[in-house]
Amino acid sequence: MNYYEQHHQDYLEGLKAFLRIPSVSTLPEHKPDIQRAAEFVRNELAKAGLAKPQLIEGGGNPLVYAEWLGAPGKPTLLLYGHYDVQPPDPLDEWVTPPFEPAIRNDNIYARGSADDKGQTYILIKAVDGLLKQHGRLPVNVKFLIEGEEEVGGEHIESYVNSKPALLKSDAAVICDTEMFAPELPTICVGLRGIVYGELIVEGANHDLHSGVYGGAAPNPMQALAEILCALKDREGHIRIPGFYGRVTPPSDKERAAWARLPFNEKEYTEKEVGAKALVGEPEIPLLERLWARPTMEVHGIRGGFTGEGAKTVIPARALAKLSFRLVADQHPEEAVAQIRKAVADACPKGVTAEYKLIHKAPPSLVDPDNRFIHAAAEAMQQVFGKDTVYIRSGGSIPIVAAFEESLGIPSVMMGFGLPDDNLHAPNEKLHLPNFFRGIEAVARYLQLLGA
Amino acid sequence: MNYYEQHHQDYLEGLKAFLRIPSVSTLPEHKPDIQRAAEFVRNELAKAGLAKPQLIEGGGNPLVYAEWLGAPGKPTLLLYGHYDVQPPDPLDEWVTPPFEPAIRNDNIYARGSADDKGQTYILIKAVDGLLKQHGRLPVNVKFLIEGEEEVGGEHIESYVNSKPALLKSDAAVICDTEMFAPELPTICVGLRGIVYGELIVEGANHDLHSGVYGGAAPNPMQALAEILCALKDREGHIRIPGFYGRVTPPSDKERAAWARLPFNEKEYTEKEVGAKALVGEPEIPLLERLWARPTMEVHGIRGGFTGEGAKTVIPARALAKLSFRLVADQHPEEAVAQIRKAVADACPKGVTAEYKLIHKAPPSLVDPDNRFIHAAAEAMQQVFGKDTVYIRSGGSIPIVAAFEESLGIPSVMMGFGLPDDNLHAPNEKLHLPNFFRGIEAVARYLQLLGA
Repeated sequence: MNYYEQHHQDYLEGLKAFLRIPSVSTLPEHKPDIQRAAEFVRNELAKAGLAKPQLIEGGGNPLVYAEWLGAPGKPTLLLYGHYDVQPPDPLDEWVTPPFEPAIRNDNIYARGSADDKGQTYILIKAVDGLLKQHGRLPVNVKFLIEGEEEVGGEHIESYVNSKPALLKSDAAVICDTEMFAPELPTICVGLRGIVYGELIVEGANHDLHSGVYGGAAPNPMQALAEILCALKDREGHIRIPGFYGRVTPPSDKERAAWARLPFNEKEYTEKEVGAKALVGEPEIPLLERLWARPTMEVHGIRGGFTGEGAKTVIPARALAKLSFRLVADQHPEEAVAQIRKAVADACPKGVTAEYKLIHKAPPSLVDPDNRFIHAAAEAMQQVFGKDTVYIRSGGSIPIVAAFEESLGIPSVMMGFGLPDDNLHAPNEKLHLPNFFRGIEAVARYLQLLGA
Repeated sequence: MNYYEQHHQDYLEGLKAFLRIPSVSTLPEHKPDIQRAAEFVRNELAKAGLAKPQLIEGGGNPLVYAEWLGAPGKPTLLLYGHYDVQPPDPLDEWVTPPFEPAIRNDNIYARGSADDKGQTYILIKAVDGLLKQHGRLPVNVKFLIEGEEEVGGEHIESYVNSKPALLKSDAAVICDTEMFAPELPTICVGLRGIVYGELIVEGANHDLHSGVYGGAAPNPMQALAEILCALKDREGHIRIPGFYGRVTPPSDKERAAWARLPFNEKEYTEKEVGAKALVGEPEIPLLERLWARPTMEVHGIRGGFTGEGAKTVIPARALAKLSFRLVADQHPEEAVAQIRKAVADACPKGVTAEYKLIHKAPPSLVDPDNRFIHAAAEAMQQVFGKDTVYIRSGGSIPIVAAFEESLGIPSVMMGFGLPDDNLHAPNEKLHLPNFFRGIEAVARYLQLLGA
């Protein structure tokens, strides 16, 4: 039994204590829990033996910082994670309460177990283990753990942008992604960007009776439907002029590697997605649709009367939450301009339509051909005993672009989650073998890099 | 000064007392007010000298009944109105409180002033005046006043259907419509029918993350938009096979009469509708679009996340409240079958779509060439001093079809509202000269019919 294997019970108890703190960042009533979670992380970093463990207060929820810089001449890694979690609702769908961690079938169930407390804890315990065993680390590290990832992470972005000297590093390590399949070591090398906004359509200046005015008055909800259908066709092609102009297709090598990934489309459709059929651009393979193609999705739609029964109103206004995922080399600002032009062109008679931006993040594509990623792949392969695969993610992690733009460093996305971890949903879990092996893999990574 | 002119002050005080009762039928907390309003009507009918004034309890809000049958050999009229009102919200848009009647510029402002307490009171006071002056009426009358018109009026329909002998009459008089223009005596001879339901679209069996699944997972809101656009084109034509099959166009004579009506389209668009432009089938004249063409309208739409900020969810479900107005000779049942077929045909891949019926009512078209309508037109002309015009209404009054089907009698729709009365909206009003002249016109009508 190696050092890490001897400490499984300690890691588990520590993780449970972390998971019991309901640090939900979207709900103001959890502000004290946010503070407790930040202090928990600082204390863990202090106990591990890192220098300058501290909360950085001042803008939103505290950032937690700590460093160990005792390896001059060796690379410096910026280790990123987040201690905030999504709200747990709907509560009644949880088998065990979201903030009372429970173990079933080698999984630990709790809100934040995979996203991202469990993975943040992997980073902390890997460093803790090396310091406890050797009194020093093979490389320099700077921890930067945030508490607003689930609400947009704006404060960390401006902090990173304002402190390039303090955060100067050679690469960032992000433990907030997943493995492609159980026990298959995976590095994520691409993320989609996003433009998220509200499409607001307004008709008459007051609600109207549909009997008296139906056939003459503009209907903002019908108009909204018409705009959505003009922006995306029934096959999933975005019909915004110029939108695909900068889209860089994956290389033949990358496509071939994706085609080799272990993937059962029927199981994915029926079990993971839970749908009768998949949709999207029919001429593009599935993984490429998810990872390397922009998409348009409606997240919410609201207008008029939706209570019980009937009300014959033509409302004055309708709204849709509408986002576009972007891929390299699309630019969010340019996409917003294209979207706004297309909305204006598609706007029917009698109504006005406006696309109001809420947030945006550029796509990221990391060149896997660098020593930081090579070492990560090697470390994971050694610990998990299988060749590491390279994937992309359809999601967006805005901090990756911030590290690239503000600090000029690449991000190494080593993730230990699984596709069925129920992120943002009831019964979120983390596979415990991944958790324990993750700690070893990160420690091994630091050793390989410092060798 | 005639008898009616001498009693304006009494009529006004009585109407105010009626309007002070907040008899909102959609809100359970107003149940006691509903009862008070019903009792108010019964007491007014008793004070007028009608026989058998009573509340008919048993199904929903009470019906109020009273009769005077002392003119054998003369026609019998069934006089209909309703004492319930719409909710008053949004309260902060009322200049004076909705249940504290206030007079400004010859109008009385209060919820229910036009729809329909003021007009119901016109019927009561016309009969009251004749009985007070002559001790008898020139015709027989049966009052049937309901308290559920604003919530669908189902109970009165089943009551009418179950009591053909008790309610046996020669014609119904409905005081719940409006004049085409101020002081222009108007009879409504056509109403649109309606089919009202919910269009429910379901995709995956759980909410999904749009980053991870966008590009593969079906989106029920986009699918809903696609179905709405398939059912109605951008010009307002309904694209449901067979839907226009039974639509009877107005006669040339009716079209010519409509074209002569005093109507300012610019003012209608900008002031009454309050929109930049009107919509609807471009090849059909406006009044015909409103009165003699079926329409499809979305009344409400709901799905996913619509709170502040951003949530990147692809929800499992979306819903629209969707109605179709019908015109003679469309049949509601047939229309529902056509709609369901078209929804199924338009349903995109990966989702299911269902149209769930909430309520329906057939269209009504009254032949104006009968003595009951002739007398009404003559009475209104005598009192208002102008030729009576015949219009239709785009709305639906289901009781008209029930009177036709269950009792076999035509309805005479003499209305004294105005197009800008703000029905169902803040600052509902009734034009007082119309109120006072309305009482005289109904009394004159009964005299002409009994002559």
